[in-house]
Amino acid sequence: MKLRPSLDWLLVFVPGAIVLDFVAPERHTLIFLIACVAVIPLAGWLGKATEHLAERTTEGIGGLLNATFGNAAELIIALFALRRGLTEVVKASITGSIIGNILLVLGASFLAGGVRHREQEFNVAGARVQATMLTLASVALIMPALFHHLVGASSAERTLSLEISVVLIVTYLLLLLFSLHTHKKLFTGTAAEAAQVDDEGKAPWSLARSLGTLVGAAAMIGWVSEVLVGSVEAAAGSLGMTEVFVGVIVVAIVGNAAEHSTAILMAWKNRMDLAVGIAVGSSVQIALFVAPVLVFVSQFLGPEPIDLVFTPAEVAAIGLAILITGQIAGDGRSNWLEGVQLLVVYAILAIVFFFLPAA
Amino acid sequence: MKLRPSLDWLLVFVPGAIVLDFVAPERHTLIFLIACVAVIPLAGWLGKATEHLAERTTEGIGGLLNATFGNAAELIIALFALRRGLTEVVKASITGSIIGNILLVLGASFLAGGVRHREQEFNVAGARVQATMLTLASVALIMPALFHHLVGASSAERTLSLEISVVLIVTYLLLLLFSLHTHKKLFTGTAAEAAQVDDEGKAPWSLARSLGTLVGAAAMIGWVSEVLVGSVEAAAGSLGMTEVFVGVIVVAIVGNAAEHSTAILMAWKNRMDLAVGIAVGSSVQIALFVAPVLVFVSQFLGPEPIDLVFTPAEVAAIGLAILITGQIAGDGRSNWLEGVQLLVVYAILAIVFFFLPAA
Amino acid sequence: MKLRPSLDWLLVFVPGAIVLDFVAPERHTLIFLIACVAVIPLAGWLGKATEHLAERTTEGIGGLLNATFGNAAELIIALFALRRGLTEVVKASITGSIIGNILLVLGASFLAGGVRHREQEFNVAGARVQATMLTLASVALIMPALFHHLVGASSAERTLSLEISVVLIVTYLLLLLFSLHTHKKLFTGTAAEAAQVDDEGKAPWSLARSLGTLVGAAAMIGWVSEVLVGSVEAAAGSLGMTEVFVGVIVVAIVGNAAEHSTAILMAWKNRMDLAVGIAVGSSVQIALFVAPVLVFVSQFLGPEPIDLVFTPAEVAAIGLAILITGQIAGDGRSNWLEGVQLLVVYAILAIVFFFLPAA
Repeated sequence: MKLRPSLDWLLVFVPGAIVLDFVAPERHTLIFLIACVAVIPLAGWLGKATEHLAERTTEGIGGLLNATFGNAAELIIALFALRRGLTEVVKASITGSIIGNILLVLGASFLAGGVRHREQEFNVAGARVQATMLTLASVALIMPALFHHLVGASSAERTLSLEISVVLIVTYLLLLLFSLHTHKKLFTGTAAEAAQVDDEGKAPWSLARSLGTLVGAAAMIGWVSEVLVGSVEAAAGSLGMTEVFVGVIVVAIVGNAAEHSTAILMAWKNRMDLAVGIAVGSSVQIALFVAPVLVFVSQFLGPEPIDLVFTPAEVAAIGLAILITGQIAGDGRSNWLEGVQLLVVYAILAIVFFFLPAA
Repeated sequence: MKLRPSLDWLLVFVPGAIVLDFVAPERHTLIFLIACVAVIPLAGWLGKATEHLAERTTEGIGGLLNATFGNAAELIIALFALRRGLTEVVKASITGSIIGNILLVLGASFLAGGVRHREQEFNVAGARVQATMLTLASVALIMPALFHHLVGASSAERTLSLEISVVLIVTYLLLLLFSLHTHKKLFTGTAAEAAQVDDEGKAPWSLARSLGTLVGAAAMIGWVSEVLVGSVEAAAGSLGMTEVFVGVIVVAIVGNAAEHSTAILMAWKNRMDLAVGIAVGSSVQIALFVAPVLVFVSQFLGPEPIDLVFTPAEVAAIGLAILITGQIAGDGRSNWLEGVQLLVVYAILAIVFFFLPAA
Repeated sequence: MKLRPSLDWLLVFVPGAIVLDFVAPERHTLIFLIACVAVIPLAGWLGKATEHLAERTTEGIGGLLNATFGNAAELIIALFALRRGLTEVVKASITGSIIGNILLVLGASFLAGGVRHREQEFNVAGARVQATMLTLASVALIMPALFHHLVGASSAERTLSLEISVVLIVTYLLLLLFSLHTHKKLFTGTAAEAAQVDDEGKAPWSLARSLGTLVGAAAMIGWVSEVLVGSVEAAAGSLGMTEVFVGVIVVAIVGNAAEHSTAILMAWKNRMDLAVGIAVGSSVQIALFVAPVLVFVSQFLGPEPIDLVFTPAEVAAIGLAILITGQIAGDGRSNWLEGVQLLVVYAILAIVFFFLPAA
């Protein structure tokens, strides 16, 4: 709490969204906006509960918990959207989470840190591992999209997506083995450490409180997500946005708000290893874990399964974002202009997605 | 003058082009070739006047002047081509300037320097900033082209191009702030320094002489450009080239001849910071400043506005040129083979543009 | 012999393939599989003969011999496939050799070495030169494919392919000049050195024995190749694979088996310069020398010439493989996870090629 300004007052939007959805279900845009804001503090509490739970276990299990629940809010929103058959929104929010973390969060962190510090350094070895994982993920998204472009819709697409999803999840587990076990010294400054910084000097919560908060926050995110995805179509229309734009930009910003504020604060305090680890690590987790898990879950949940075939605009956005992030993060140093460069690429992509008509 | 062989005798081609255009306007090919050569010494004088003017001001303003007028010759030619409605030629010459500076000028510099010196070093921090800016610029060109490919011609294209152009110009101004003010020590060896080297020991020109030469050279370039763009269509036809090939290869070589000779000479003298700064810096300026300025100016000037939608071949050429330049320049060292590599990529692109039929 | 487990017992498959093809020519799949295995020990003997021949000459000529005959087995198989008009298989096996060496061989080497050694280092300067050459080669493959996509089949394609092939061969010769003469100190650990390690303490063969073995092994590879390419179409069909998949994955693995075993063994012994040199150097040689030579030879040999127009899936696979290899090899260090990353990209590409229907 010392380092991160409290977002708890935003919790008032949680009942706000739910009540408004009940009493005035036709106010789609207002409901959507309020539900968006309501997710932010809940995602924060979910993260905090995970961190306290992690401290009660061994370091390895703790790291695993943090890594697994790190993007739980995005996952929950996506599951509710899947159940409604909003497959385009789900894919758009995966795209948005990947590019949002490496362009918006990392860019804002470099800019905030660079305004205060002339030049900042971070652990280049850890950043390179993550950057290469993102390049690998871009291959896993480019090839199915190319396959679709060449072959057209076919049953092979689904099998191919499932097989690549298995490969990605195995890769993610091997990354955990690498970063939490065999080469953990390479990764100074993980999300777990960020939590300690955040609450330093405070005793960890009891197991019951941790688990209770975790379940409670997740349930509330589920409830708000139900409201949010119920209003997204109508809200997008009345705001003059496509659903894809809402998914890529709006949902992605909302779902990652907690990471945003922590990473920027860490950069301001010149703890760049943490800032880079949170931003890039989040993108890696979405690409290698959340996306393939959603492919599997969607086979059973909801009216329509999703595959790894993203739209050309999404694939191009992810590929280019990963390319420039690798270039910028590859030297282990940052300054304010590098932050601007990442933010500018985000702005260009956002402009293009804004004008892109619905499919 | 000491370091750079004088191109002043080429000034005889200036009246030559103008007179020939008047007495034998049907000799298109000859007029075109003579006008091309005539631009070279004029661009040199324009550059020299800018540098002398820059020395009369503060360092910051001087850097700004150099940066702004650095590609004035290309800008003037492009404006005259715009007025004639030669939008394809304008875009082709932007493409050619970007790839010509990083492949041809930088490649020839690495080769010339590498023949004499076994290995050469340059300031890697400055080169990285510029290389990342080029990657950013490639995003700004790839996404509109993709948009066009997906959506087809639409009014959104124009709005999108204007908005991205604003973003690029702001980015360019922030780059100037970074390189001339907040982090100027990162950039040892700028174009301004090259000028000092060039004329070292000589007194700077008076303000009147600087301004007079600047205006005079610009006016003459305008006149010759009028002749040049008037003959380009017919000349291209009789030379068996498309207008796009002439724009990408011929106009780009002519407009950047002054940079070519200076950069190669600097590399030969083992002043690699200057050589790299001139070559890569020129590409950055074309992509982030000249191109978006032309988008804006074309809204008012000429029969047809231009946008940022380049052809697939142009986008691929720019993207690949930027990719390999980033890889080659990323380690702060060069040798003759790296020069060969850049020149070979230029040759491959030139071959493809040569065979590409007119749209 | 001390370091590399003998593959000589596999020689029994050589007469096996030839005899079976004679007595039971309808057993296509079995013939194909046996012929595949039979190539492996023959390629090993071809390599060994080249190395002994190289030791009898000056260092420069020896390096040249090694470099030129390094992929002789692939070349011979491709020539026999060309004569049968299997142009798609030839291109697919070029693709497979390029990506197989940098993803499968280098990946397996990094993994094998990384399991035993926490972190391994290799000569980053040499690796960067090779990686940049691969990027250059990717430009030489992307642009013709784009040309074909934009213009359609045309006579210009053939001229363009021949011109770019000339450029690539010249580039390859300049690379040899660089690596064997002007900057040979940059390349510690070449294939020649690998041979010495392999047979250290043993006397080099006589000239007659070297030449005899070279010619004999090449002739046998030719014979087996004739059998192999004669059965590939029918075998692919009955195995449920397309010819392209067989070319990209199966033929590529078979033709490079000798490199595979040597590179992995070198990595295990922590001689990473050799492992990286063999893997990446092989890909460079295929892309800059074998592929353009096949373009020329195919003009005279076989029913149908080939060009440099590869399919979109092949171009994407090569481009992405080269991109991630550059990123992974760019820091001069490796660990087991980097090996996994390369192997995972190979697996993703293999999955996509498996599902890709025949053109």
